[in-house]
Amino acid sequence: MLKAEIKAEVLKEVVEIIQTIVDEVKFNFSEEGLSLKAVDPAHVAMVEMELKKDAFISFEADETELGIALNKLDQFLKLSASSDKVTIEHEDDGNRLVLKVNNITQKMPLLDTAGMTDPSVPQLDLPIDVKLLGKHLQTGVKASQNIADHIAISVGPNGFELFSEEDEDSVKLAIPKDQLEELDASEDVRSLFAIDYFANMIKSVDSNKIVQLELGKDYPVKMQFDFADNNGHVMFLLAPRIESV
Amino acid sequence: MLKAEIKAEVLKEVVEIIQTIVDEVKFNFSEEGLSLKAVDPAHVAMVEMELKKDAFISFEADETELGIALNKLDQFLKLSASSDKVTIEHEDDGNRLVLKVNNITQKMPLLDTAGMTDPSVPQLDLPIDVKLLGKHLQTGVKASQNIADHIAISVGPNGFELFSEEDEDSVKLAIPKDQLEELDASEDVRSLFAIDYFANMIKSVDSNKIVQLELGKDYPVKMQFDFADNNGHVMFLLAPRIESV
Amino acid sequence: MLKAEIKAEVLKEVVEIIQTIVDEVKFNFSEEGLSLKAVDPAHVAMVEMELKKDAFISFEADETELGIALNKLDQFLKLSASSDKVTIEHEDDGNRLVLKVNNITQKMPLLDTAGMTDPSVPQLDLPIDVKLLGKHLQTGVKASQNIADHIAISVGPNGFELFSEEDEDSVKLAIPKDQLEELDASEDVRSLFAIDYFANMIKSVDSNKIVQLELGKDYPVKMQFDFADNNGHVMFLLAPRIESV
Repeated sequence: MLKAEIKAEVLKEVVEIIQTIVDEVKFNFSEEGLSLKAVDPAHVAMVEMELKKDAFISFEADETELGIALNKLDQFLKLSASSDKVTIEHEDDGNRLVLKVNNITQKMPLLDTAGMTDPSVPQLDLPIDVKLLGKHLQTGVKASQNIADHIAISVGPNGFELFSEEDEDSVKLAIPKDQLEELDASEDVRSLFAIDYFANMIKSVDSNKIVQLELGKDYPVKMQFDFADNNGHVMFLLAPRIESV
Repeated sequence: MLKAEIKAEVLKEVVEIIQTIVDEVKFNFSEEGLSLKAVDPAHVAMVEMELKKDAFISFEADETELGIALNKLDQFLKLSASSDKVTIEHEDDGNRLVLKVNNITQKMPLLDTAGMTDPSVPQLDLPIDVKLLGKHLQTGVKASQNIADHIAISVGPNGFELFSEEDEDSVKLAIPKDQLEELDASEDVRSLFAIDYFANMIKSVDSNKIVQLELGKDYPVKMQFDFADNNGHVMFLLAPRIESV
Repeated sequence: MLKAEIKAEVLKEVVEIIQTIVDEVKFNFSEEGLSLKAVDPAHVAMVEMELKKDAFISFEADETELGIALNKLDQFLKLSASSDKVTIEHEDDGNRLVLKVNNITQKMPLLDTAGMTDPSVPQLDLPIDVKLLGKHLQTGVKASQNIADHIAISVGPNGFELFSEEDEDSVKLAIPKDQLEELDASEDVRSLFAIDYFANMIKSVDSNKIVQLELGKDYPVKMQFDFADNNGHVMFLLAPRIESV
């Protein structure tokens, strides 16, 4: 059973974040709120998200798994303004989700969740930890996209760098230590990533929000940020590309 | 003979409304103002419009029929700001319309009106009459377009509904009686329409303007609204689709 | 050697102006500032531009020729806001230009300038001289583009006209003498031009800026305007089309 009310803008942010990784996903509702995990079809990127019940205007739920087509939910949300109240309902014996906003009621068939396994999130002990503003990442990624297919993230005691090159073109974003929100790096670490995936993940970040990145040489990068007045939390993992020497 | 001045925004609205139905139309000018009728090529939708001489800044006309290519008039109007004064002139012996705005003079050949018959508007006695804000219709149509090719309009003593479904997806816009501007319905009536045509008609409505709909079961829907400070009036008719049971 | 700082919006204007004519160009730096000349691949239009050292925030340069791919410079500038300070550097022994804005450093290989000859600008003694606001030209060109491939520019003692026609459609922009900024025309002169080229040139003009046009019957039109607080000056030449009678 599920019956919840939520501000349209919060649900929009949830959809925007997950859509960077998958088109269909399993929403896991419990008494605590909403959680979900998803891995992209090529198994390069993973997202784990939690939205506490306090992020909702009202919330009542048993353990409920709902298979959601994100583009349909996205289209429904486009009928609402940011501050509109959206109602989400699911009857235990029903195969449809019932969504309401303003005078509109939309019924959406649920996807079969049998094939949607919960990916297991690897426990990584990453030595480097850095926090910076979303807009720095966005500018750096935009600059790199003009030039190359890959982006190197380097972090060390002196600061943070994004670097891309292709033939003789190169572009670098360098954020010195004093412009970072936080830096915990006792050594220099550099890893290479596919720029399209990284750009997608970055796209869902609010530009004035603080993002945490954790890195290890040739390890996946872990990116985390809060949303929905800190009642929501999201963690992305992105697998590295091996650098050819 | 025709010599008239009109605010660009009023002529823009005229063009926008008629373009939802046809690309070429016959403008009928008389001492009273401008009137026109048009039916779409598939004979599914019809528009009838009147613009009284008071909608013009200045107006002088004999009975004059002018065949107009709407896309050319539309392009000309894009050269003007909303509040610009547009001058329209036609000499009795001329085969061109002369349009002026600011420092620009455009001469446009008139289309042959021989093949443009005035469609006869059927007299319908429709039992149901409802008035509501344009924005309600627009939201409901947008929601339906996400899902289906057809839209059902239902009106009864309790209120107004738009409904669409396709497979297991469904969407409903329900406006209860007290949120309607006016409701005159002693019975429940429901008719089905092609959503593309209905959406086109709705597109030309100002979202804060009151729209009148008249309905009868499996009869055409009649939609009317005023524009140009109530000196303009437009009536659309849209033929129903037969509902398969 | 080159080391200069410039506001992003000024460099954006330089790129926008030259891109109307060519994709690749030779930037000539000297102690005085930046100058360049370019002719389009079809040899129909030519641009000559000067940007004095006072247009820069700081400026230090020897004689330096740099082959620039304008689309790369354009993409780099899109990473900046209008008021951002851009740094441009070139080492004498380097084959790359180094661009910096905010925390970004982009290195761009220079193009071989061997094949980029400086076109010689013809000395024309054009009898007609008129100055008018950019927005007048822009509206007239937009109107003409709706109708035809060519545009006639006519200037005489009474004023300035743009005229286009195709079959029975025609459009004319007429600016009488008293609405012009300046008019020096003792005779009537009319020349015909390809509208695409003329429209491109006009596109780079600020709409509230004064543009000077010089004309002679069936001679190229010469268009000049200042930018960057009058520290920049640009001259376009556009060859006429011969009017078939």
